[in-house]
Amino acid sequence: MVTIGIDLGGTNIKGALIDSKLGILYSFSIETEADQGKDHVIGRVAEAIQMAKAKAEGEIYGVGIGSPGVISYDRTTVSVPPNFPGWEKENLAEILREKTELDCFVDNDANLMALGSSRFGIGKQFDSFIMITLGTGVGGGIIYQRKLYRGVTGGAAELGHVIIDTNGPDSLSPARGGIEAYLGQRFLSRLAWEEIRKRTDNPLYEQFSGDPARLEPVHLVREADKGNALAIELLRKAGEKLGIAMVNYVHVLDIRKIVVSGGVAKAGEYILGPAREMAMKRLLEPFRTDFEIVYESLGNDAAVLGAGSLPLEHNNI
Amino acid sequence: MVTIGIDLGGTNIKGALIDSKLGILYSFSIETEADQGKDHVIGRVAEAIQMAKAKAEGEIYGVGIGSPGVISYDRTTVSVPPNFPGWEKENLAEILREKTELDCFVDNDANLMALGSSRFGIGKQFDSFIMITLGTGVGGGIIYQRKLYRGVTGGAAELGHVIIDTNGPDSLSPARGGIEAYLGQRFLSRLAWEEIRKRTDNPLYEQFSGDPARLEPVHLVREADKGNALAIELLRKAGEKLGIAMVNYVHVLDIRKIVVSGGVAKAGEYILGPAREMAMKRLLEPFRTDFEIVYESLGNDAAVLGAGSLPLEHNNI
Repeated sequence: MVTIGIDLGGTNIKGALIDSKLGILYSFSIETEADQGKDHVIGRVAEAIQMAKAKAEGEIYGVGIGSPGVISYDRTTVSVPPNFPGWEKENLAEILREKTELDCFVDNDANLMALGSSRFGIGKQFDSFIMITLGTGVGGGIIYQRKLYRGVTGGAAELGHVIIDTNGPDSLSPARGGIEAYLGQRFLSRLAWEEIRKRTDNPLYEQFSGDPARLEPVHLVREADKGNALAIELLRKAGEKLGIAMVNYVHVLDIRKIVVSGGVAKAGEYILGPAREMAMKRLLEPFRTDFEIVYESLGNDAAVLGAGSLPLEHNNI
Repeated sequence: MVTIGIDLGGTNIKGALIDSKLGILYSFSIETEADQGKDHVIGRVAEAIQMAKAKAEGEIYGVGIGSPGVISYDRTTVSVPPNFPGWEKENLAEILREKTELDCFVDNDANLMALGSSRFGIGKQFDSFIMITLGTGVGGGIIYQRKLYRGVTGGAAELGHVIIDTNGPDSLSPARGGIEAYLGQRFLSRLAWEEIRKRTDNPLYEQFSGDPARLEPVHLVREADKGNALAIELLRKAGEKLGIAMVNYVHVLDIRKIVVSGGVAKAGEYILGPAREMAMKRLLEPFRTDFEIVYESLGNDAAVLGAGSLPLEHNNI
């Protein structure tokens, strides 16, 4: 079956024509132009849908859209997406169905990453898994018995806001001490700099003392690759925190397969090794059986593949 | 429909004849005699089932048994229940079906408390809720869309082992800093005593300095009722920790109704008030809508009512 997947971001709208067996048939990206307001952006999304539709040979089963903001349980409505001026509560699915004559469904990005992994990525091998997206923020999606677990309002799996230290550092979230406050890109960098600044003989100090704000997790990884013990230590500490958060997810959900993706996840074993070690230490014994952390290598394609899978998942196909 | 509910405890076996509409028709308790070994105990359970069956006028739909230990996903088998000498991995459901000619199902106590509350208690009003049992340990059960959420192996909702402080106090669990390390009866008492011993002028010091091990949460409640500021403060701190744990459950599950039961929960608003306050502070804004903490007053009946509901729930009735 052929569907359209759209990933609505603050800067770009990514679109793809998706075959439910073969994956991406055709993909492209256009600018969001969010500063031109709500109607303009919705028009751009409709354009993207038409662009994908024009490339299709047969019928389109439906459209899935990954969007920021709070999504309604029925997958129609987006509320106050950050960085989208002029948006309040918009029934995106209905507006787009009128414009395109296709069935449209909306969900959040992390859920769609999980769905994409489940149908096209490393998640295919698991009936149930927990997706953790490690990027600017920390997001999550839960696949349970091959379906998204969505909670009561569709807002489940806010995994970045699971608290691991009651008195831990602040992030932009009211959930102070949440795992995002350690692993979110900017927070990881900030916490790393607090240590690096004390080590004036370290190459990382030399590189970033002029402008610490430039420090990104990728720089820690590069230094770790060169054998920089401080960089390895900083990534290890971050990984251990992630391991604690995983213990919490597993003890609540009894799902022992963890799929990680996103920019920070590219730190690979520097973070995931210590996460695995810590989790295996703190998990209740029965939960250690079959516990596994794997990396999703689909990258951003997972989101658009998940978006394209949404009309099928929604209709239990 | 009429079923039998059994609550297999280390000291007593509680049994009841349950009407799915009316609740408990008849109930009783016999000694477990766990020290006499596995076969004896299973025989005692079979006796309890026969005692209940003898009181029934019509047909029995099935039997549900609440048991300690790890329960298999298919609800037949119990592994290594603590304080049951001689038990390893026992297919309790099959053995009891042979002995009683009734369909038998096993699940853990906290799950059955949740099910009992959902069908006969305060949980009836909620399609989805999180049950927290505050007793010797801290347990949990998750009702999602009127069914138990059970995870991949049936072990979901180990809510006492959700970590809120990575470097928090030890309990008997590998999940150091888990909420059980603060709220489990003996841990709450131990943490309270650490403060009380510094306050030699406090009535609690006078009462328990001879034998601090006698201090139980109920004593804190009695003192709080008399206006003892230290007792109120100690319960408040425990409640705030519980609030943090609730934030974690809600952010993972997107279920905003919390039902608490068990001995420690009888501290009521001394604990639940501060828990509610803390949760409302740390929850992401959208999750504060409809967030509610309520108390299950069925007491231990919830477990046996849940056990009696198990054959129906298992068969989607």
